[in-house]
Amino acid sequence: MRLRRDKKASGYLEQSEKVIKNPEEYKGKWHTLFNNENPIHIEFGCGKGGFILELAKQNPEINYIAVEKAETVVYKACKKAEADETPANLYFLYFDVSECLTIFEENEIERIYLNFSDPWPKVRYAKRRLTYHKFLEKYAIILIPKGEIHFKTDNKGLFASSIEQFSYASWLMQNVTLDLHNTDTPNIMTEYEKKFSEQGFTINRLEAVSPKTK
Amino acid sequence: MRLRRDKKASGYLEQSEKVIKNPEEYKGKWHTLFNNENPIHIEFGCGKGGFILELAKQNPEINYIAVEKAETVVYKACKKAEADETPANLYFLYFDVSECLTIFEENEIERIYLNFSDPWPKVRYAKRRLTYHKFLEKYAIILIPKGEIHFKTDNKGLFASSIEQFSYASWLMQNVTLDLHNTDTPNIMTEYEKKFSEQGFTINRLEAVSPKTK
Repeated sequence: MRLRRDKKASGYLEQSEKVIKNPEEYKGKWHTLFNNENPIHIEFGCGKGGFILELAKQNPEINYIAVEKAETVVYKACKKAEADETPANLYFLYFDVSECLTIFEENEIERIYLNFSDPWPKVRYAKRRLTYHKFLEKYAIILIPKGEIHFKTDNKGLFASSIEQFSYASWLMQNVTLDLHNTDTPNIMTEYEKKFSEQGFTINRLEAVSPKTK
Repeated sequence: MRLRRDKKASGYLEQSEKVIKNPEEYKGKWHTLFNNENPIHIEFGCGKGGFILELAKQNPEINYIAVEKAETVVYKACKKAEADETPANLYFLYFDVSECLTIFEENEIERIYLNFSDPWPKVRYAKRRLTYHKFLEKYAIILIPKGEIHFKTDNKGLFASSIEQFSYASWLMQNVTLDLHNTDTPNIMTEYEKKFSEQGFTINRLEAVSPKTK
């Protein structure tokens, strides 16, 4: 996808200490960035960033990395976090998730969040869905053994195809719900989730445990 | 569950040739009942029986066995089929699904249908759900290798917990949908399904392939 270049966004991202411009250089040593040995959780597709910002504030003992492809989106997420004095345990990256193996080492990540990922509803674009099995293979590599993906979406088609893909790739699905807001599961709502659940859309969610055994 | 004894139903079931009173005696030799070597498909919980009756009419090359626990329910299903000149490839049984290993031999069944099974929504009754993993273990025994369960329900809680159970028991889930009536999947509606989908309930469906490798 071609994205419109935004000079203001680019300039901001260039100078921000909270945005890692050369993430490949941290491969295998992300802990040095956080200066501790705490577990690392990533959100692929952080959007406006409200979800991971709130998580980072609530859990100072976890390190968070928010990832988005589009500069302009990361820019907005960064600005939002900055207004909240970006927590020390939160950094931002912009890259395409398909490149994640160049950025993270095997077993480097404890958990991945996928929230309201693009559903790519047309079958011919199924490979672009972030739960397509080729992506799951990569996630299984960067995750620790029994590392988890926490996935939620209002999109029925994406949720159904994701179940097929997790099943095909032998991930263990647990805490599955087709109506998250009617469960006791602790939940931080994304900006998108607030908007669409107010319109009556129900939220599907599951946790998938990596099949890797090492 | 205690069920009210219905003399009329009992009398009818006693004399009907389409109702097998001593199913244990057919274990391992169900083909002799149908007098052919065609694959056998079962519906556990046939309710009023419209679904399996229609299947039997559409697929004379498949043998069908409709199962219900309650005499009065089997009675209604039989009467309905009889009004349609019960097809030669359809028989009825009444027994508790938990007893299925006493009735069917290993590898004797090709497919199991579970339609709108009792959701048993309370957690303390989860073991009674027909997709609870203890049931899945039994189904895997009576099914041929790569035999399938075709499962549909409008109940979100039952569907979610079933996904967890199939995943836990390593069944492969495919053709998953959270909105069956908006797909191209060929579908025969049950009586319950007609009623509740008219009220706006969406239907969830999946196919699960047995993990057994022999």
